[in-house]
Amino acid sequence: MDLTLLDALQRHAVRRRRLALMERLGDRAALIASSLPRPRCYAGATYPFRASSHFLYLAGVAEPDAYLLLADGASTLFVHDHDAAHALWHGPGPSRDEIAEAVGCAVRPLQELDSALAGLDAMTLPTPDLAGCAALSARLGRPVAPGELAEADLPLADAMIALRLVHDAAAQACLRRAAEVAGRAFAAGAALVAPGGSERAVRAAMEAVANGEAAGMSFAPIVSVQGEVLHNEAQRNRLGAGELLLVDFGVEEEHGFASDVTRTWPVSGRYSPTQRAMVEVVLAAQAAAIDAVRPGARYRDVHLAAARAVAAGLVALGVLRGDVEELVADGVHALFFPHGVGHLLGLDVHDMEDLGDRAGYAAGRTRSPQFGLGYLRLDRDLVPGMAVTIEPGFYQVPAILNDTAFTAIAGDRLDRAELARFSDVRGIRIEDDVLVTSDGHEVLTAAIPRTVAAMEAAIHGA
Amino acid sequence: MDLTLLDALQRHAVRRRRLALMERLGDRAALIASSLPRPRCYAGATYPFRASSHFLYLAGVAEPDAYLLLADGASTLFVHDHDAAHALWHGPGPSRDEIAEAVGCAVRPLQELDSALAGLDAMTLPTPDLAGCAALSARLGRPVAPGELAEADLPLADAMIALRLVHDAAAQACLRRAAEVAGRAFAAGAALVAPGGSERAVRAAMEAVANGEAAGMSFAPIVSVQGEVLHNEAQRNRLGAGELLLVDFGVEEEHGFASDVTRTWPVSGRYSPTQRAMVEVVLAAQAAAIDAVRPGARYRDVHLAAARAVAAGLVALGVLRGDVEELVADGVHALFFPHGVGHLLGLDVHDMEDLGDRAGYAAGRTRSPQFGLGYLRLDRDLVPGMAVTIEPGFYQVPAILNDTAFTAIAGDRLDRAELARFSDVRGIRIEDDVLVTSDGHEVLTAAIPRTVAAMEAAIHGA
Repeated sequence: MDLTLLDALQRHAVRRRRLALMERLGDRAALIASSLPRPRCYAGATYPFRASSHFLYLAGVAEPDAYLLLADGASTLFVHDHDAAHALWHGPGPSRDEIAEAVGCAVRPLQELDSALAGLDAMTLPTPDLAGCAALSARLGRPVAPGELAEADLPLADAMIALRLVHDAAAQACLRRAAEVAGRAFAAGAALVAPGGSERAVRAAMEAVANGEAAGMSFAPIVSVQGEVLHNEAQRNRLGAGELLLVDFGVEEEHGFASDVTRTWPVSGRYSPTQRAMVEVVLAAQAAAIDAVRPGARYRDVHLAAARAVAAGLVALGVLRGDVEELVADGVHALFFPHGVGHLLGLDVHDMEDLGDRAGYAAGRTRSPQFGLGYLRLDRDLVPGMAVTIEPGFYQVPAILNDTAFTAIAGDRLDRAELARFSDVRGIRIEDDVLVTSDGHEVLTAAIPRTVAAMEAAIHGA
Repeated sequence: MDLTLLDALQRHAVRRRRLALMERLGDRAALIASSLPRPRCYAGATYPFRASSHFLYLAGVAEPDAYLLLADGASTLFVHDHDAAHALWHGPGPSRDEIAEAVGCAVRPLQELDSALAGLDAMTLPTPDLAGCAALSARLGRPVAPGELAEADLPLADAMIALRLVHDAAAQACLRRAAEVAGRAFAAGAALVAPGGSERAVRAAMEAVANGEAAGMSFAPIVSVQGEVLHNEAQRNRLGAGELLLVDFGVEEEHGFASDVTRTWPVSGRYSPTQRAMVEVVLAAQAAAIDAVRPGARYRDVHLAAARAVAAGLVALGVLRGDVEELVADGVHALFFPHGVGHLLGLDVHDMEDLGDRAGYAAGRTRSPQFGLGYLRLDRDLVPGMAVTIEPGFYQVPAILNDTAFTAIAGDRLDRAELARFSDVRGIRIEDDVLVTSDGHEVLTAAIPRTVAAMEAAIHGA
């Protein structure tokens, strides 16, 4: 447990978050678990511990098998009292008093938790891992499963969503820090992009920055010359002259907050005319979407602004024909831009995805049945303090373009002869992190080169 | 699933391993699960997938939620038939025929597994993760829990232990590769060791080599100026002039095999006289232990050879007094060298630790109740093809040296005045990977500098 993470700003924030949560819960109690270490090879060889985001939000530090109990207007953190053997192997940890001082609440030994819970009928939220949920189930005497919200726990889920949707000053500081380190990671990656290089080397260099300057990566990165595979997590290819390298990478800073950025670089340092034309289409779509980010805007409309720009760009290039509004209404653009324009960003890279569309969709709104729009992860009205990604793209996905179940909607509005000119464009995505401000927005990742000229320069600068 | 991992050597090996296992099992069937992805933040944001070592041993490739069924003299691999949405997001995977060709056995869709299992009464082994075990439980209709061997599954556990204890040519090739990449990681780490540097930067540089050239790290590394904390996984300190930096780091190569190496470097590039003296004690202990590694040797005796050398070295330095054999018999050396001299090495860094001391201890042998010796993870007679680590150390652990429950055994044989001279030696460990050969041993990690002069040169070379 690294108590130095709790500087004055963070300490104040976690205390205020707990008070705000208790205010929303009234006289109901809540138990927030940190989760358990996840075994990699065997029980003693685990992945780096990552606490539940709900716990991190309220405690500010990570500790396995710890529990925060909010009841009767007070917060209590329950932690293991480590024995002498633990001190021998893992060193002396902070005392309960030191933890209490840093976290700003009472700290008690874990063995007292069960009696503290007696008669409280506490609400809870599932941890990401089954073992953490099994431990919660045992504590509470009722089933708790990853990703499954019990009816009884919905008030807690809604209260957490309401709080975590709007990033306080401490959370914004963390998001800025995650964005800043991502910038250095992208610079380190760009330096290794050249014909004959490898996806894996670029990824390793970026990961080294994330590990060296922050807590690591916020998700399994995509570093691929096969940009048309949307979540391509394998890095096995060498970089070929004339190819595009799509890099979708994020940093997790020390408190757990994420950045999530995508650039699509020309391996040779220069985009071909067709690549450049298509990068410009995606950049225009991103600009249109970012421009739409402001308080009161509906995120689906932000998505549709990007969709219209993609459709308009493809019409201008001759790949699509017809009226832009009709193309978007029919979802024809989604043949090339099949995913949503972005998602919430916070302690999770898809923030609060563990709570399902309850987090991403406003009450009364549901996923569209339409291909493409149905993948939109967020449909809320924006308010200051929200953070979202804006990440339009253009992809030639064989599984879509070779399947008439998808392409039928286009009819003769898709010009395959024109499309064939763009055979050196497999996939492009440009993604930035955007904070909603009181008078519009701020691009947190603006320092990372993203114009055509700047991306070429980043690679030429190697 | 990266089928290119299955070159002729590996393909031949996994086929032969399956046949050898079936021969040992007679007419009993066995089901080996790969395990499930472990969630990090939420179900869709997982840690990098790592298959169960038993599965990797028999299949040669990783695939989540896959099952290898050995029954009636034949092997069948059951895998998900991925749908179109999966291909859209994750790209087209290899076909069942391509997998069958590479793995060398029949491949069937996962939905056929339950009927294939009907009436077989198959044995199994737990996966590392609770979710993987829950899936196995559901398939087999009986409880399966991480780290818990059911009575009915012991014959399978024993057969796997017998096979995995003796590394075949393919496994040895993997161990060599893991050792080789570790060498480059240590060189990259050494280049960043200097006063004002940081533990985290050294670790990140080494991790980048492991990620860039292999599958990653084989365990959470220790990179610490607080070498006296045996399993110190935090990297928060800067490197101070005159300090020692203990680096315990291993690589996992693509098939899952591990290396595990420790060096203790002088941050300033030169050991102080007291540091040098103590490094020489540990190096002598390592040499004595490595020298004892040969077919027929009992690993506990290898450990005791190191213990004697540590005791003798401390007597020569005046820190201990008395007869070396008596000091070791009483466990006095363990005040400074409290852990075992090493462990099995293979697909797990502590190979087969998921099977408990059944893997590490020969039938009829059990852990010693003595402090120090009780931490010995391996007590088998060595045979050619076994791989072990040899990793003696010297540590000044406050939790031991300030506790008379530990120190009473020393009586007046511990000279604290002499010990006080070594206040700049917090912890030293030197570890290499050793393969038992038909006529002795081979140090797989011999290329990594480990003499006093070579370790100083590695840092000076920065």
